[in-house]
Formats: sequence, C-alpha cells, structure tokens
Amino acid sequence: MTQLLEARAGRLTPAIRRVAEKEKQPVERIAEALAAGETVIPANVNHAGLDPEGVGKGLRTKVNANLGTSPSFPDLEPELIKLEVAVAAGADAVMDLSTGGDIDAVRRAVLAGAKVPVGTVPIYQAAAHARDRSGDVTEMTPDDLFRAIELHASDGVDFITVHCGVTREAVQRLESQPRVIGVVSRGGALLINWMMRRDAENPLYEQFDRLLEIAKRHDVTLSLGDGLRPGSVVDATDRGQIAELLILGELVAVAREAGVQVMVEGPGHVPLDQVAANVQIQKRICHGAPFYVLGPLVTDVAPGYDHITSAIGGALAASAGADFLCYVTPAEHLGLPCPEDVREGVIAARIAGHAADLVKGVPGAWEWDRAMSKARKSLQWERQIALAIDPVKAERVRAERNPGEIDVCTMCGQYCAMKIDSGRPHASTGR
Amino acid sequence: MTQLLEARAGRLTPAIRRVAEKEKQPVERIAEALAAGETVIPANVNHAGLDPEGVGKGLRTKVNANLGTSPSFPDLEPELIKLEVAVAAGADAVMDLSTGGDIDAVRRAVLAGAKVPVGTVPIYQAAAHARDRSGDVTEMTPDDLFRAIELHASDGVDFITVHCGVTREAVQRLESQPRVIGVVSRGGALLINWMMRRDAENPLYEQFDRLLEIAKRHDVTLSLGDGLRPGSVVDATDRGQIAELLILGELVAVAREAGVQVMVEGPGHVPLDQVAANVQIQKRICHGAPFYVLGPLVTDVAPGYDHITSAIGGALAASAGADFLCYVTPAEHLGLPCPEDVREGVIAARIAGHAADLVKGVPGAWEWDRAMSKARKSLQWERQIALAIDPVKAERVRAERNPGEIDVCTMCGQYCAMKIDSGRPHASTGR
Repeated sequence: MTQLLEARAGRLTPAIRRVAEKEKQPVERIAEALAAGETVIPANVNHAGLDPEGVGKGLRTKVNANLGTSPSFPDLEPELIKLEVAVAAGADAVMDLSTGGDIDAVRRAVLAGAKVPVGTVPIYQAAAHARDRSGDVTEMTPDDLFRAIELHASDGVDFITVHCGVTREAVQRLESQPRVIGVVSRGGALLINWMMRRDAENPLYEQFDRLLEIAKRHDVTLSLGDGLRPGSVVDATDRGQIAELLILGELVAVAREAGVQVMVEGPGHVPLDQVAANVQIQKRICHGAPFYVLGPLVTDVAPGYDHITSAIGGALAASAGADFLCYVTPAEHLGLPCPEDVREGVIAARIAGHAADLVKGVPGAWEWDRAMSKARKSLQWERQIALAIDPVKAERVRAERNPGEIDVCTMCGQYCAMKIDSGRPHASTGR
Repeated sequence: MTQLLEARAGRLTPAIRRVAEKEKQPVERIAEALAAGETVIPANVNHAGLDPEGVGKGLRTKVNANLGTSPSFPDLEPELIKLEVAVAAGADAVMDLSTGGDIDAVRRAVLAGAKVPVGTVPIYQAAAHARDRSGDVTEMTPDDLFRAIELHASDGVDFITVHCGVTREAVQRLESQPRVIGVVSRGGALLINWMMRRDAENPLYEQFDRLLEIAKRHDVTLSLGDGLRPGSVVDATDRGQIAELLILGELVAVAREAGVQVMVEGPGHVPLDQVAANVQIQKRICHGAPFYVLGPLVTDVAPGYDHITSAIGGALAASAGADFLCYVTPAEHLGLPCPEDVREGVIAARIAGHAADLVKGVPGAWEWDRAMSKARKSLQWERQIALAIDPVKAERVRAERNPGEIDVCTMCGQYCAMKIDSGRPHASTGR
C-alpha cells in the first residue's frame, strides 16, 4: 500500500501523522491533500530509519540537495561528507546522482546514513552500465533501465526522477522552435539520443505501467523529470518545454489512478517575469501535483553565484506555488560541488523557501521573523545567533567583525539606530 | 546650472552625452527623461574626474556600495581598499557613510579616488561633531546640519541622503501603528530623537528651501531618505512608512520646480508579495522619480546571508521599476563589512539588477545571456569565464573543481548533456 492509497482508504499512517506534527497542521488536512494528490510523502517501504517529509500545497517549502560521484570524482567518502553537511545545513531531502565509481555502494551508504528522503535518477546508472559494457550509452536496453529502477526501489530510494515526458512528439515540438543551448538535462539528452538512434519511443513512456507497478510495490514517489527544461533564459517556456509538460500532466492522472505518488519537475533557467507563469501552468496542467523546481535561475551570466541566481528564482517560484526547491550551488556550471558549496547551496535555497513561506502563509513562518526582529530590537546577540538560519556563520561573522564590542555592532557603534530609537520620547498621537 | 535645468533648456551636456553612450540609447531620450525628472545624473560640479551615470526609467539598473569608517574602525586605509574592491566588482556608485575618525579626510579621499558618483549622509557628520563637542547628538543645531551639507556639497559629493520626510506628522502616524522593531534608519532615529527632545520640526523639512539652494548651486542630487523604513518584514508598508512617502512625493515636486535633481529612497525589509506594491506606490506618489532601494530584504532570519535576502528583493523591486539598488553585504546586521563582504555584496546586487534588466528590456541585457549560453553550448570555457559577472571567481572555482579536465566539467564528465546533445540526430518534424 502506498501512502496515497492509505490516505484514500482513510487510514492515518505513522508517516501522515509525523508530517502533520512537523508541519503543525491537523493530520486530517495532510491526509486529504495526500489523497487528492496535491501532497506527496516520499517514503519507500524499504528505507529503514526514514523520518518522512511532506511535499505539497500548504506545507513548508522543502529543499533538496544533490550529491553523488562523477567519473572524475568517483570516491564514496566525500559524498558522505556532503550528505552530512547538507543535512546539518537543513536540507529536507537529498538526491544521489552518482555516475562514477561503485554507484550501488554510494546509493546504499547514502540511504543508510540519511533520515531524510533520498532520491535518485536510475537512468544514470543504466547508462553508465551500458557504457562500461559496450562503450556506448545508447547500447542501454529498456530492460537495463527497468532493472536499475527495480534495484533502486528495492534498495529503499524514496523518489526517482523519470523523464517519461521526453517522447517523440515532444522532441518534434522542441525541434520546431530552435534553441540557443538545446537539451541540458543529462537524462533528457541520453534518452533523446537513444530514441533517435534506435528510431524508438521512450521506454519510460511506452512502458509507463511497468514503471507504475515497481513504484507501487515499494511506494516510490515518481518525480516526472523535465528532460526538455530550458538551460538558458533565452530558451525558457518554449514549445519543447511545454509539450513535455502536457504529457507529464497526462501521466500524473494515470499514476494517481494507479495509486502511485507523483510530483512534477520544472525548470531550470527562466527570466523573472516568466517564473510565476511556469508555476501556474504546471499546477493547472498537472492537476495540482507538487512542483519540484531546479532553480529557476533568472540569468545565465553568473557562474560562481548560481546559488544566488536560483535563490531569486526559487523564492519567486515558491511564492507562486512551487513546493520543492532543488538547490543550486556556487559550483554549478563550473564543476562538482565541494562540501562548502553544498552548505552555501542549501542555505540559499532555504532562504528562498522561507521568504516564500512568509507569503504562502505557512504555519510558523512569521513567528521566526518576528522573534528575530524582537531579538534585534533588544540587542540580544546570543538570541539573534541562535535564531539565524545558519547560526555557525552568523556567529563567525559577528566574532570577526566585532573585536571587543558588547551591546551594539561595529556597523554603527554608538550610532546604532536600535539604541537611539529605544531612548526616544514619544510623540502625542493627537487621539 | 544643474543637469536638470540644462536638459530643460534643451542643452545636451557632456554628462548627458556620456550617459547616452553608456546606455546605448539616443541622447535625446536621456535628455527628455532627465527634463521630466524620471532620470537623474548625480554629477556635482566640484567632483573632478567623475564619469557620470544616469539613474532612472529605462536605464540599466544601477548598484551602490556603502563604505565608510565607524567609531570602532576609524581608519582611512581600509575604506579606500573597499572603494577599489567595490569599483572593481562593478559598483556604479559608492556612498561614504563614515561616522568615525577624520570624516572629512575619508570623504575627500573617496571623492579623489572615485570616478563613480559618490554619495554621503551629512547628518552623520553633524551628529558626530555635536557628540564630540557636547557628548550628546541632540545638541546638534540646524546650522550644524546645514554646515555639514554645504561642506559635502562644496567638496564635490554627487548625491546626499536627506531625511526630509521624517516630520512630526509622519512620526505621529508611525506611533499610531505599533512596530516590532521601531526605527532602523540611523538618520531617521537621530532626527526623531532631536525633534522630540526639542519639541521642534525637522529642520530638513522646515528649511527645505535652504537645502534646495545648496543643492542647486553645486548640482547635488537629493536622495530623499526613508527614515521610517521598516527594519523587519513584520513592519513593512505600515502607516509611518507610507506617511513619510507622501511627504517625499510633495518634496519631489518642490525640488523639481526649483531645478534640483531628486530621487527617493525606499525600504528595507519587505515580504516578497509587498515588493512590487512598494515600487508602484512610490512611482505614483513621487511623480516617477527614480527609486533607490536598500534591499529590500525579503526575510529577517538570515544574518550572514543578507546579500542573498536582498538580491531576491532587489531583483523583484527592480523588475517592478526600481532604478537603483543599494547593496547589502553578508556582514549586514552583524558588523562593518570587510573588503570580501563588499565584493560579495556588489556582485549579488548586480545579479539582481541584471536579472531585472532582462525583463525591463534594457538595451544589451539579453545579448549578455545569449552570448554566455552560446559559449556554454559550445563548451568554450575561456569565453564563459570572460563573460562571467565575476570572472575571477568563476575561473577560481573552475580551476579548483576540475583537476586536469579539458572540454567538459567534473559535474557530469562524459555525461555532459551539452556534449551528448550536440551529437543528437534530428527528428523529422513532420512539416
């Protein structure tokens, strides 16, 4: 039984109760949203030790951190350090996107070490295996792909990205409107190449029932990938992207009908004034399915700072209704992130999510800012540090910039507005 | 003659021509917007070596970096280093907010070293002098204040923040709607204290003509300060803030009538969904005067990352029509920024400004992103680095994360989507 089917049957599972507790919301509300498919609780029955999280409408905006090996950095150890850093920084989920070294060992170690939900992209492993076997990723067979999916599911992976909407029709639409940067999704690019070389349809679309069967058996949440997402603001919201979204909307309905939990992935690189439209069209086309966005990055010109370009887009997207933000690190477009990049990426995405939670009216969001502002007003520095989204950094910066200061800070010293204003005599208000 | 009066008289000054050249726009368009008061060119006749910048409607969004001594860090040298760092990072203007050490010496050194427009807040110096003289900032007299303004103007300061809208009426409105954090503007807090203790009106309001006379004589652009800006998202867009804005709108009309260039300062801490409204109301109430915002910070909980909270708000504000972004550094709310904070702050604000320029349709904005995306598609790394908003950081991150790699990066290695996609056979499009 998936969490979706349990909720539909009116059963309040421990996972539903735990999510309600964390969200400070009535358990019935969580169960209703889950039954309607507007919330998912990615919780594979095989993931021992999972502390479940909900993703969806009315819930706190969640943040995912990507980690995983690459062919150039195949070692397990650094990825486990990144996992630790990501969770300590407040990531609500992690994805293991390993493509190098012993992929099975990394995934299992991450699952064993993670209380947060874990996601993967099984096609990476299927392609890597085909490549190891024959030197060519397009030698991957549909069975290779489903074997990888079954393996990840039985290992306990809570959600998997599957690029089911990269169909021949969507690719035709993509090609009918030329792009500057083409296809930037690894899974999308692999599948398109495979489909074109073999003159075949996407097996994840053609055998969607086979995918649903595996997902249902282990309660793996499907994260319908956007293989045709834009990789440049110049390419955003084009025919290829929207054609794929239309197909994902149809698949959301099929998955729900089968009792499988499903969310939808979104862009990518999107100019500021198209971000809200992207969320609105996804919510409409995909029947209110949770929306999991990668960024969006609102400009292409800032490699080294894409945690910031994506915090801008992520805050806007989440305030328009996106539910789940995939972090982007300062290393994006330049190389594999190091642990410090992971920390910066998680915090930037959490800032975006929280800024949106204020306007979404998420329970508890305003109390945090109110408490911080009260601590500021009364110059309670220890409390300000404790309330900071990253207390470690806040404390370090305070210590470095304030040699010997006590009640104020070195920005203004005795000219501290808080201090001056606290001594202000009051005006008579006239009434 | 101020630039405003010159433009009204139909004269195309060298400053107007230079701004048109930098903005890649017809010189007549710049002159028209200047004559209408929708653009300012802060260019004090006494600022030798200034390379003028325009601020206003249709122009590239500009970024200001604050620097200056404080009582705890009174030395000149670090501030000159910050000036250099800010300009190298792309700041379009700097403000010297010194309150410690030899304030005159710092201002003059900054003016001598800066080709970009320089702003100050003369009340800081007047208050510091009163404090040195009598131990109490409220011992400052109106003459002290105007003497400081005259001094800054004759030294060549291009724009000054003057909190003319902090009137007794505005303070009454402020007190009629309680705030969590009160008044957070140093100038605002100083003035209110002064007014309440002396039971007097704000001299910057009462003697606005005296201010205009000085500003006109040297062509100092007035930046009407928002002394009642919110310092917490909880306090945003309240009666005090809007009451002050109404007064600033009236003063904009008076200043323009007198031929004095004028812009208006804005918040501060503002939740995401109030940012656009803040810009729209300012533009309406202040007759389209250029809007210079401090942030806005969209949440209070991220000390150590307020360059990010303000990049989110700044991008939104600028896309809604704000013209000038005052940077916020990672040290905000914690201490005086160091040079590295200055660099991070400038880049974050420039990212926000550029993301907005894409949707504002600023000439040349899209070409930058398009060029970067083309360089990405063709894996031209040197060109990507050269096009990056911060080439130094982009190159460092690339070098650190890519030991020995050549044509791809260590994020994906051989699984690089750009590379896979470049080899893709094309689908027949059906037509």
